[in-house]
Amino acid sequence: MKIIELKETITASNDLDAEVLRKEMKQKKTLLINLMASPGAGKTTLLETIISKLAHKYKIGVLEADVDSDVDAIRVSMAGAKAIQVHTGGMCHMDAGMTRCGLEALDYEGLDLVFLENVGNLICPAEFDTGAGKKIMILSTPEGDDKPLKYPLMFKESDCLVISKMDVKEFFDFDLSKCISRAKALNKDIEIFPLSAKTGEGFDEFIEWLEKQIIEWKR
Amino acid sequence: MKIIELKETITASNDLDAEVLRKEMKQKKTLLINLMASPGAGKTTLLETIISKLAHKYKIGVLEADVDSDVDAIRVSMAGAKAIQVHTGGMCHMDAGMTRCGLEALDYEGLDLVFLENVGNLICPAEFDTGAGKKIMILSTPEGDDKPLKYPLMFKESDCLVISKMDVKEFFDFDLSKCISRAKALNKDIEIFPLSAKTGEGFDEFIEWLEKQIIEWKR
Repeated sequence: MKIIELKETITASNDLDAEVLRKEMKQKKTLLINLMASPGAGKTTLLETIISKLAHKYKIGVLEADVDSDVDAIRVSMAGAKAIQVHTGGMCHMDAGMTRCGLEALDYEGLDLVFLENVGNLICPAEFDTGAGKKIMILSTPEGDDKPLKYPLMFKESDCLVISKMDVKEFFDFDLSKCISRAKALNKDIEIFPLSAKTGEGFDEFIEWLEKQIIEWKR
Repeated sequence: MKIIELKETITASNDLDAEVLRKEMKQKKTLLINLMASPGAGKTTLLETIISKLAHKYKIGVLEADVDSDVDAIRVSMAGAKAIQVHTGGMCHMDAGMTRCGLEALDYEGLDLVFLENVGNLICPAEFDTGAGKKIMILSTPEGDDKPLKYPLMFKESDCLVISKMDVKEFFDFDLSKCISRAKALNKDIEIFPLSAKTGEGFDEFIEWLEKQIIEWKR
């Protein structure tokens, strides 16, 4: 298991760096997806399921960004993806320079799809463009349906909202329609997929959307 | 409902500011507790339960820090605490200067106990001393028992770890003894209270510990 230690790129031009990286990824036909969520919302579990469903059709890589540990990179490697662990040196988010370093260490040439599993945090990662082509966020039902009100930027910035752990929503009085309308009020174009990795509910629609993004990126 | 908008205090001397604030709070016999956790771990629910159990004996105040919204301040006000909402202007944590502004706006004179409900985030709040006398963190069972490995600083910095949502731990394969030994490996002195706000399990021990802290602070 490869682990690299990164420090924040001190640059006033993160947005510019991100734009350059996005263009390079487009030329190489590799879709980079920035996956963001709170700690424990189910990012790694979602990746494991995606890999199990798509690894026969697409070459998939994963950058696992964490403050510490390598448990997630080991999990997604075992699921069948090319993975490396990125340590952020205490940083609470990834930026474009850090993402470029991670991609180079991963050696992403020839991959169709690379996930950047960002640090578990609903605030800071939303503020930094990593150069990803698409942004997916996860909200898990135990976190509560009021989260769009409290962390609006993440919902505004994401292309897709996965609502995870739908199998346990009753235990947490999670109101799906309230959550959807709060998210849509912030971002009318956000695609929303309620699902459960335990029961498999909702995955067909999500995987269909994801494949569409890969195909469009390669055009 | 009072809402104040704060900006980060640009100061190299946050630790010093925090120390000064802590001494002032000690002189005024008000215990300030910095309450930290991921989004949705149950910070506000824990506060509601604490207030319901202790408001007849102690005067309690709450600073509700959020990037946006005022839902939490309304909840704890209704539970019987003196509360204000603090907006952090996008910031992912509170520092000592912001906490002082919040305390002044709350007018905390005569309160026995003030909770700073920090922004929902397991990373950044751990890095900034707010001037609190004690730090409590919450980990909810849906987040997983591996979180000490991934967010070690928060576990190192906290005096007390509340493990919440114990009533649903089976749904998430949460291994309590693994979680406790991982937390203790980072911080051997951390006090750990597994509990459930839904069933009431574990609260007697936690409230007993909390009252001990209030009494010791007033000495």
